[in-house]
Amino acid sequence: MNEVLSLLKNHRSIRKYSSQPVTPMQVEEIIQAAQMASTSSNVQAYSVIAVSELQLKERLAGLCGNQAYVSECPVFLVWCADLSRLKSAAERHLQDRETYEGTTENFMVATIDAALAAQNAAVAAESMGLGIVYIGGIRNKIEEVAELLGLPELVYPVFGMCIGYPDQEPGQRPRLPLEAVLHWNKYDSECSNAAVNQYDEVMSDYLRKRSGGAKDTPWSVLMAEKLAQPSRLHMREFLQRRGFELK
Amino acid sequence: MNEVLSLLKNHRSIRKYSSQPVTPMQVEEIIQAAQMASTSSNVQAYSVIAVSELQLKERLAGLCGNQAYVSECPVFLVWCADLSRLKSAAERHLQDRETYEGTTENFMVATIDAALAAQNAAVAAESMGLGIVYIGGIRNKIEEVAELLGLPELVYPVFGMCIGYPDQEPGQRPRLPLEAVLHWNKYDSECSNAAVNQYDEVMSDYLRKRSGGAKDTPWSVLMAEKLAQPSRLHMREFLQRRGFELK
Repeated sequence: MNEVLSLLKNHRSIRKYSSQPVTPMQVEEIIQAAQMASTSSNVQAYSVIAVSELQLKERLAGLCGNQAYVSECPVFLVWCADLSRLKSAAERHLQDRETYEGTTENFMVATIDAALAAQNAAVAAESMGLGIVYIGGIRNKIEEVAELLGLPELVYPVFGMCIGYPDQEPGQRPRLPLEAVLHWNKYDSECSNAAVNQYDEVMSDYLRKRSGGAKDTPWSVLMAEKLAQPSRLHMREFLQRRGFELK
Repeated sequence: MNEVLSLLKNHRSIRKYSSQPVTPMQVEEIIQAAQMASTSSNVQAYSVIAVSELQLKERLAGLCGNQAYVSECPVFLVWCADLSRLKSAAERHLQDRETYEGTTENFMVATIDAALAAQNAAVAAESMGLGIVYIGGIRNKIEEVAELLGLPELVYPVFGMCIGYPDQEPGQRPRLPLEAVLHWNKYDSECSNAAVNQYDEVMSDYLRKRSGGAKDTPWSVLMAEKLAQPSRLHMREFLQRRGFELK
């Protein structure tokens, strides 16, 4: 196995950081690596807000559901889907032509562009000895986050990412068996479902060991709870207000 | 600069492949690395269809807008957002409880999960000496692709990815200046727009050199064309038919 594969396979989310700072130069190095990820037709429809001010991180930590590591990490990155830069750049060439930035397709392009760049950033950061954790909680109070960071129309925060030097060595959570996610030439529900049953046992064992016997809820039960729980129902209206009409 | 950073920064999309095969074991290695990417609350809401059958690749190439490399590459991966596995796993625990899989939030979670895993796969493949190119064209005739691959409800193809040993050495397309995408503590439109003007010149130069003087359209003009062009307007209705209601 080569060094890159070991790095990828060794990933675990880090939620506790040492006091060692992350320099602006390191952040720039990470974002430059992120920029080299593929992008749909070279639109590069994403932006990153690197948050280093303590007060701002504290406000964001509160808005993300009081996740302390958002304020404790040296740098908190907010990954945004960004069609605003595109629109501004295009505007002077458009005269009165109709434009289609509000489509579901363009929403997807910008969201995917942000995610591909972010994952490159995650890998880059880990290669430098840093640890990261993605923060979906940035979408809890997304309107407030957008205002706090001064995001213009057609820009929305997709997720956050804490970055810092690890001060913990968490165990690695097992993933679904390969057969659950990899299909050859045709989608195979039966094979995938059988693998899920196997995973239920693996995850119960893992949780039981990690919690000293206190927890052992199978994955499928956790997923049932998740699906039965309404989550971030404000998303569609928020996006529409921001110009992502999802037409 | 460490080895991982050089790999990331050296990325270019590969659209011409040698006849050297990619083995199923290599594909498994790549997908295992993909699986270690972060995933929202461990939902792992994505699946990959690895297409190796020539006839199937040829059908897909046609559906992707006749991109020859889709049939010429040894393995074509179709990355899918997948809430179906989650729903099946959850179902027996849910009895008659209402579920919320059709929200915009869950659509985003599954799409982002697929993208993060795919970018890990891209990096893994490149670390093994392989080349890749993302294929957004999979969304051109997305309904036909979904049927061809036997995708159940709540699964949709996000993008394709050709994989194979490179038989070309394309130049690297310059990216936007760092200042266009990286903001500190607050979104800065002015700085971003100034960087775009600079990029217009860089890209014109790049295109002029690459085309021997035949092309030099600035980036902002290309983006104007893109925004003025309706693209994949079927996406929302397709997603809704597939259970992604975007509520």
